[in-house]
Amino acid sequence: MMIAFTRATGQRNGARHVWIGYSRWSGNPATGRHDRGTGSALSGGLAGALATGYAVLEAGGTSLDAVTAAVVALEDNPLFNAGHGAVFTLDGRNELDASIMEGRTLAAGAVCGVTRIKNPVLLAREVMEHSDFVLLSGTGAEEFAATRGYEFVPQSYFYTDARWRQLERIRAGDTGLSALTIAHVGTVGAVALDQHGDLAAATSTGGMTGKRYRRIGDSPIIGAGTYADNRCCAVSATGHGEVFIRAAVAHDIGARMRYGHSDLAAAVREVVLEVLPAMHGEGGVIAIDARGEIVMEFNAEGMFRASRRAGGEAEVHIYRAAP
Amino acid sequence: MMIAFTRATGQRNGARHVWIGYSRWSGNPATGRHDRGTGSALSGGLAGALATGYAVLEAGGTSLDAVTAAVVALEDNPLFNAGHGAVFTLDGRNELDASIMEGRTLAAGAVCGVTRIKNPVLLAREVMEHSDFVLLSGTGAEEFAATRGYEFVPQSYFYTDARWRQLERIRAGDTGLSALTIAHVGTVGAVALDQHGDLAAATSTGGMTGKRYRRIGDSPIIGAGTYADNRCCAVSATGHGEVFIRAAVAHDIGARMRYGHSDLAAAVREVVLEVLPAMHGEGGVIAIDARGEIVMEFNAEGMFRASRRAGGEAEVHIYRAAP
Repeated sequence: MMIAFTRATGQRNGARHVWIGYSRWSGNPATGRHDRGTGSALSGGLAGALATGYAVLEAGGTSLDAVTAAVVALEDNPLFNAGHGAVFTLDGRNELDASIMEGRTLAAGAVCGVTRIKNPVLLAREVMEHSDFVLLSGTGAEEFAATRGYEFVPQSYFYTDARWRQLERIRAGDTGLSALTIAHVGTVGAVALDQHGDLAAATSTGGMTGKRYRRIGDSPIIGAGTYADNRCCAVSATGHGEVFIRAAVAHDIGARMRYGHSDLAAAVREVVLEVLPAMHGEGGVIAIDARGEIVMEFNAEGMFRASRRAGGEAEVHIYRAAP
Repeated sequence: MMIAFTRATGQRNGARHVWIGYSRWSGNPATGRHDRGTGSALSGGLAGALATGYAVLEAGGTSLDAVTAAVVALEDNPLFNAGHGAVFTLDGRNELDASIMEGRTLAAGAVCGVTRIKNPVLLAREVMEHSDFVLLSGTGAEEFAATRGYEFVPQSYFYTDARWRQLERIRAGDTGLSALTIAHVGTVGAVALDQHGDLAAATSTGGMTGKRYRRIGDSPIIGAGTYADNRCCAVSATGHGEVFIRAAVAHDIGARMRYGHSDLAAAVREVVLEVLPAMHGEGGVIAIDARGEIVMEFNAEGMFRASRRAGGEAEVHIYRAAP
């Protein structure tokens, strides 16, 4: 699988700053590789989102604000499958899902199946901070958005030629639907630790190309695609959503740390390299623990990811080894 | 809180049979008590659902079939908040959620926000067994149902005078919305262990009275309201859904057993009596482990529950001690 990640860590006034963002991306489904031009554009997009989120932490902002800013930047980038540039459903629509969680309070918000919201992650945060609910869906989520003064965008806002061509290939049935749908997933997300020691995670996606029946994947499901808990870690996941829900991926990684006393790397590897492959669940996660350890793991050929660690430089990677 | 549970266990040809069902029920929100007539009718409904599920196990059926049959019986009973007799949304509609999970395969299916499906738990199972998805929502779930030959019921099928009066009280604003919405939750569910050693769990609900914005609670969320894993336990939860999602209640109980080596009773008590109260999350769970141990726990005044253990008789309880 091909996924994009960004990850960052900073150091400021002796305090720890850590920021991670990622975006799952699809290149050539036949080879699993991207062409040089696209790869370079994706790298640029990730680096930009990384810088945006990192700047929030550098200015003393919270991890919640940092992951929000990073995911907004990725949603606004047409190359990633979230917001502008999201994939199409089988009937040619865009249905967007997003979620966000704060590790200090375990507060969370999520939306699924929204069709007219420019930045679903902002609406997810609005649900978290200004409603009695955690998960709102479809037109109901948009009705709530209207009460909060949101402006709507037309469906055409999300359109890109590249995504439409992907849909046409699926409609033409020239490859197996399931292989293509997975290949075309490109969920974006971010996890972060701020100078206050607070963790946060956010995830946003257009789902899988050719999805139908108002299917909901793992991205808006707290515990599956997103989880943050200061007592263990923050996790954002991307992959075959159905399997990620059944394995409760994001919560399971934290649970292995809290109850099984695994460290972050061991917990992530167990889930991504053992549990998920046994369930035929391709994908990966980005995770950061309360001490600032960062782990990005995937069980497929590549995962597009970028990072910046405390005191370090920005890094962008796709495959395990440099191509 | 007032919740109804049924639970059963049987012994056949030396093999273990365990079956649990429950239903959360609201009596008088002011006193937390039910009147004698209603309590008796609820007890009868629970006993009937218990017998239905138990009969499946006695005949050598699977835990999956047993929990399905029990939840269908509770959905069909107008006294419980699921199927016929579901609560109303703020705009006077019925939006139903359900989920089901099989402990041997970790297969799962769920639907949320359906409005024309007589037995949502049957559609959740259909999603599990006959789609590539885990969670389908609203009209999309109904579109899938049509492809499977489902007949639809009109919204009037779900109507009961009692639920409509509850909505009118909320609309009149004579009490705090949040207190009433919680008081009126009456989610139903069942967990079971069959003679093959397989666990299953199912949950179904109309959500909370006066809900809006197409809010989705914990009942259709695998890991929150429902989870089953032969390596630890099967759990069905009922309560303040938003908190149950944030705490990933059903998955967390299993995780404490698998990684922390808690027994079922300790894991359930930690979550229901410590974690949830700290988050202001009222409610409870029914759970059964792979050895047939059964635990029903709640952090409120009562939880309507019934059970039948291996070699034992059917039991129905509401409060901690007999009234």
